[in-house]
Order: sequence, then C-alpha cells, then structure tokens
Amino acid sequence: MKFRVIGSAADQARVGELNTGHGLVRTPAFMPVGTRGTVKGVFPRDLLDLGAQVILCNTYHLLLRPGIDLLRDLGGLHRFLGWPGAILTDSGGYQVFSLSSLRRVDDHGVVFRSHLDGSPLFLSPELAVEFQLIAGSDLIMSLDECPPWPASPSELDQAVRRTVLWAARGKEAWERLQDSHASFPTPEAGLFGIVQGGGDARLRALCAEELGAIGFDGFAIGGVSVGEPPEEGLRAVAETVVHLDPARPRYVMGVGEPWQMVEMVNLGVDLFDCVLPTRLARHGVAYTGMGRISLRNSSFRLDPAPISSECGCYTCRNFSRAYLRHLLKSEEILGLMLLTLHNLYFYLCLMKEMRTALERGCWEAFLAEKRKRREEFEEGG
Amino acid sequence: MKFRVIGSAADQARVGELNTGHGLVRTPAFMPVGTRGTVKGVFPRDLLDLGAQVILCNTYHLLLRPGIDLLRDLGGLHRFLGWPGAILTDSGGYQVFSLSSLRRVDDHGVVFRSHLDGSPLFLSPELAVEFQLIAGSDLIMSLDECPPWPASPSELDQAVRRTVLWAARGKEAWERLQDSHASFPTPEAGLFGIVQGGGDARLRALCAEELGAIGFDGFAIGGVSVGEPPEEGLRAVAETVVHLDPARPRYVMGVGEPWQMVEMVNLGVDLFDCVLPTRLARHGVAYTGMGRISLRNSSFRLDPAPISSECGCYTCRNFSRAYLRHLLKSEEILGLMLLTLHNLYFYLCLMKEMRTALERGCWEAFLAEKRKRREEFEEGG
Repeated sequence: MKFRVIGSAADQARVGELNTGHGLVRTPAFMPVGTRGTVKGVFPRDLLDLGAQVILCNTYHLLLRPGIDLLRDLGGLHRFLGWPGAILTDSGGYQVFSLSSLRRVDDHGVVFRSHLDGSPLFLSPELAVEFQLIAGSDLIMSLDECPPWPASPSELDQAVRRTVLWAARGKEAWERLQDSHASFPTPEAGLFGIVQGGGDARLRALCAEELGAIGFDGFAIGGVSVGEPPEEGLRAVAETVVHLDPARPRYVMGVGEPWQMVEMVNLGVDLFDCVLPTRLARHGVAYTGMGRISLRNSSFRLDPAPISSECGCYTCRNFSRAYLRHLLKSEEILGLMLLTLHNLYFYLCLMKEMRTALERGCWEAFLAEKRKRREEFEEGG
Repeated sequence: MKFRVIGSAADQARVGELNTGHGLVRTPAFMPVGTRGTVKGVFPRDLLDLGAQVILCNTYHLLLRPGIDLLRDLGGLHRFLGWPGAILTDSGGYQVFSLSSLRRVDDHGVVFRSHLDGSPLFLSPELAVEFQLIAGSDLIMSLDECPPWPASPSELDQAVRRTVLWAARGKEAWERLQDSHASFPTPEAGLFGIVQGGGDARLRALCAEELGAIGFDGFAIGGVSVGEPPEEGLRAVAETVVHLDPARPRYVMGVGEPWQMVEMVNLGVDLFDCVLPTRLARHGVAYTGMGRISLRNSSFRLDPAPISSECGCYTCRNFSRAYLRHLLKSEEILGLMLLTLHNLYFYLCLMKEMRTALERGCWEAFLAEKRKRREEFEEGG
C-alpha cells in the first residue's frame, strides 16, 4: 500500500491516491460497508459501475461466519466475495465491545461470546492482525479499545493506554509475519493505527503521537459517531488530525452524514465508511441535494418525478417516486435495491465532487456552497 | 400484435416471432413473472441482459395496488415499471378465484374482496379487457373461470360455459373499444382467449373450438399446473393444442418445470410463465442441467465451484457455492438476487436452446437428449 497526496487546499483538505494490491483508490474516498461479506443488496459489478474502489468488511462478523479457516481455504476475501477492488477490514474490536456478550477484557486481549451461537472466542492484537492478513485485506486495522460515549476520564485513559499497547503489539506481530506476507492473499497490505481519546484533546494528541512513534502506514480516528453530538465528533477529529503525519492516509471510522464528510475532508480526512446510505435505503429513505426524503410518504403516490432530477443514477434515470413508493409499500426487494443504488451513487458522487473541487483549486467555493445548502435545508443534505 | 411461425419440427414444435408494440418476442418464450409490477429481486436492465423479451404482470395484484387510476395517470405499466419490453397481463380471474375472500360469481362477473384491505371490487369480462388496455398490456387475457383440481363434471361444464360466454363478451368489449385503442398506451395489443376444461378432453376441444369461432389473436391454455399430476396436465395440453389455430400463438399459463416446457414445446406451445425460477431462488434453490440443488446444504460449505460449471451467468462466472451458502445462511439479500439471476438465466437459456434446435432442424435429437438427462437425474432437470 502506497499513499500520495496530489493536491491540497488551505493546507488541510487534500486529494490523493492510495495504491493497493487491488487497484487505485482515489481519495477522499467513501467505502460502502459490506459487514458480512456483501454490501447489502448490491451486486459487486454494480458497485464497480458506481465508482466504488474500496469496500469495508467487518472482521468480527466474518470471524463468526464464514470463519477464518474457510476464508483461508478459499483463498481470501476478494476471491470469496467476487470483489476485485480494495478491501479495508476493521480489527473486530468495535463489534466485540458493542455486539458480543460475556466479554472479558484485559491487556492480553478479549475473550467474548459469539452473538450467533454463544461460542467463546479470543481476540488479541496479534490475532487481529493475523486474521486480517489471512483474509487478504488491503487495509488492516490494529485492535483498539473503543470507549463508550460518554466515558469517564479514567475509562478514556485506560482505553488510550490499551489502544497504544495493542497497536504496538499488533505492529510487532505485523513485522514478525513480514517474511510470510508473500504467502498471504494480499502481500501489499498496509497497517493502520487507531486513535482513541473520546472528546479529550490532550488524550487524542497523546494517542496520535504515540501511534506516530510506533509507525503505521495510515491512521484511523475511532470513537467518533458513537453517540456524541456531531459537533463534538467534528471537534475531536480536528484536534486529532493535526497530530497525524500528513504523508499518511487518515480514516474516520463510521462517519457519516454527507455534511460531516465534507467538513472532515476540510480538516484533512481521506477515508470514510458508513452504513447510512445502505441502511436508510432499506428503510425507504433516499438522499437528495436538498436533504433526505422518505419514499413511503403518501405525497409521492402519484409523483412521476425521479427521486432527484439532478441525479444521474440508474434509479433516477428510469423510475418514478410513485413506482418506488409502490415497491416499498408492497415490500418488494426491488425497492430497497433501487434505493441502495441511488444512495451509494449519491455518496460516491459527493466524494468525486470533492476530489474535483480540490483538483481544480476551488475547494473554498465548494465548501461555502455546501454549507449554504445545508443551512437552507437544515438536515442531511 | 402479429405472430409468425418461422419453422417447425414434426408438424408440432415450432419456432416463431411475436411482434408486439414493445419489441420482438422470439418463441418459444419464457415470461418471468412480475406479480406486483416487479420481477422479484431483478433490475429491469438485468432482465434485458438475460434476454427476457416479455414479462407477465398480474392484473389482480395491480388492481389492488397501485390501482388502475394510478396506472392510467402515470401512462401505463411500461412507463411505471421502467420496462421497455413486452408485457402480458393475466385477466385477474385466476387470483380472484384463488386469493380473494367473499367472492360472489355469476354470469355478470365476480364481486370479491381485496386480500389486502377487504375492500369490495367487481370484475367483469368487459372490465378485465378495459383494465388491461388502460394498463397498456401487449398481450391481454380474457376473463375466465379456472376450476379447481379435481373438479366435478358439472363444475367443469359450468367453468367452460362461463369461460366461453365471458370470452365472447370480452371480445365484444374489445371491439367496442377498437376506436379508442389508439388512446391507450399500447395500441397494437392482442387479445387472447383461454381454454378451460380440466382433464376432460371433450370439454377442452369444445372450449377451444368455440373460442376459435369467436376469434382471438392468441390462445391460452388454463387450468394446468393447478395441482394435477404433471402427466395429466401434459395430456390436457396435448388434447387442447390440436384444436387451436396453428397460425396463432399458444400460451400455457403457470407452467412450469424445465422438462414440462420442453414437452409442451414439443406439442406446439409457444409461451410460458412460471414463478418457480424466482420463487425457488428466494428459497436458496438453483436449477442445474443435473437437477435442482439447495445451496443451503452443508456439503457446499467449502465448495469453490460455481452452481454449474456449464453455466455462463454472472453468478456462475463470479461466485462459489460456498459464498452463496454463506449469503443464504446469513440471510443476505444478495444471495437471493444472485440465485434469481441464475435461475432466470437457466430458464431463458433453455428457451434459446429450444429455438436454436428448432431453427437448425435438430429438435428430435435435442428432445431425446433432454429426456435422457431427465431419466438420469429423475427430477427438475
């Protein structure tokens, strides 16, 4: 994995290229989420057509099903999923803390029970790295401890201390496995450290500096979008980014709404992932340049217009709001398939617009326009 | 609508062309079923790629939702569905008899209650034709009475008598509306009569002759695949086809398994529709040249092979049985999407193979090969 900044605005927002073992990823980039080895409701070929260059998979879910042995036997995630582009995997830590029951955490790692069948599993920083190498991930995350929001000062202290400790041990495992990297499905993988620290600027800075000293191919900012007011998350990102090596890619995990991605790109963030476009689609909600709309709304019953007349996606080129509403009311699968396609197109288009604005040197004007629109339409735009 | 036989074998099986207001349909043709205005789980663009030239929609379901007024206001089914190919609509009769409650039938028509909200509706032979014209259907079915299986002789007598009466009245309505055909979305639509008569060869012949005398653009054979042993259905088709004008297209409603379609093409049938490929896909079952397989089967857990190595569909070119099993076990939408694509490809390929065999004059060899395979693999092949 190699990263290169190819242009920037106001010394912060930047456009770049991430070269992976599975193709080029132009940044800022949005990664559709494929939790259990599929971006829900989308063919891989359509993801490619939409311009997705990288997707995210959740190590925790894949550990439970289909399991790491199966992924190894079948030649890794890319072949299993039929996805030729890049894959970022999280470390599994976030889901261990949020989904599993009966977990026991100490500095060695986490013992937890599968939320599927209750079977016990162990995850350590070393195993997290090894699992992701076996899966053939292009962008590998260190195991971290993501504190809840709000967290007490001692909880935050503890999470940062352990996150740094685990990052160092993950890095050691990474280096120990260096000689065998060629035997994994993606020899060119890169390793990311994850910055925690909640809303505490001092802890965020400390964590970022220590991870920087260990040395990683990229840096993720965790503990954002975990329930805090969005403005606080934005502040945490701003206070973290300045302590990160500008030559490395920066990834804010689990973010977010379109406006949040715009503001975070403005701070110098390169990578995002979020379930919102796909999850909201399954609930009948579509993004437009003027905010979200719910296609189940009876006002669309006879509406021959597409979701958005500005949009060039397959859904908007061919189907009316009235038809989409009919599909949703009838609980037809095609409804969520068409909305998923539209929402992902919307997200991926927004990233492309940002890259173009940065390349053309008109970021300030772009940002001002987006902020103005957001004020006009309040939410979600 | 214009139909032309362009080649035949053994004076029965034939290959033809059906010219509709929405493109050419090469026959023998299979029509994917789009009950509520969508072939479940398939984008219209992918249906086109699969080679589908005509789909079936159910008038009954569309009457209830979105309703005929909406279809009229929005310019008809094709525009509403974003489907540029041909559409065959049934008359609504079959579902009125099988799905609705509290129906009251007499020679005027049927009063029934919606299975969605209990609201009362009336369907007559005249209204059935008018609704389908408003919807812009290319291939319009007369209202018929489909007797259950088994039915008493008097039930069969009654159903045939009423079916002929209604067919005549539908034809009259069709002619009365002739001057306004140009104002409907599909001026070139064709009207089909439906032959009933259960397993009674004499009644089938009578019904076919009387419908022939009334005169229709095509003929459907109903009351097959309603619970009878498949061999009896095949016999009923054989005993009906010989009484139908060979210059008109023949359509067996709701059939069937691949082997049934092969046998019925051999009898001179041109059109088929069936929910099996799409419904079975949603249950994790795939068609192969060696019978059906259930992808949920644990024997596929580590199987890197595609559903069928003979198959050229998107699913088989890119995804393993192991991955499909993982998707199905995880209840991921993509699993049923990929299986639906495969099963429709299988059905549409079979029709293409039959057309090719007929065009090349090697139908007998083709038929013998298919029968041999079926014997070898017993079921579903």
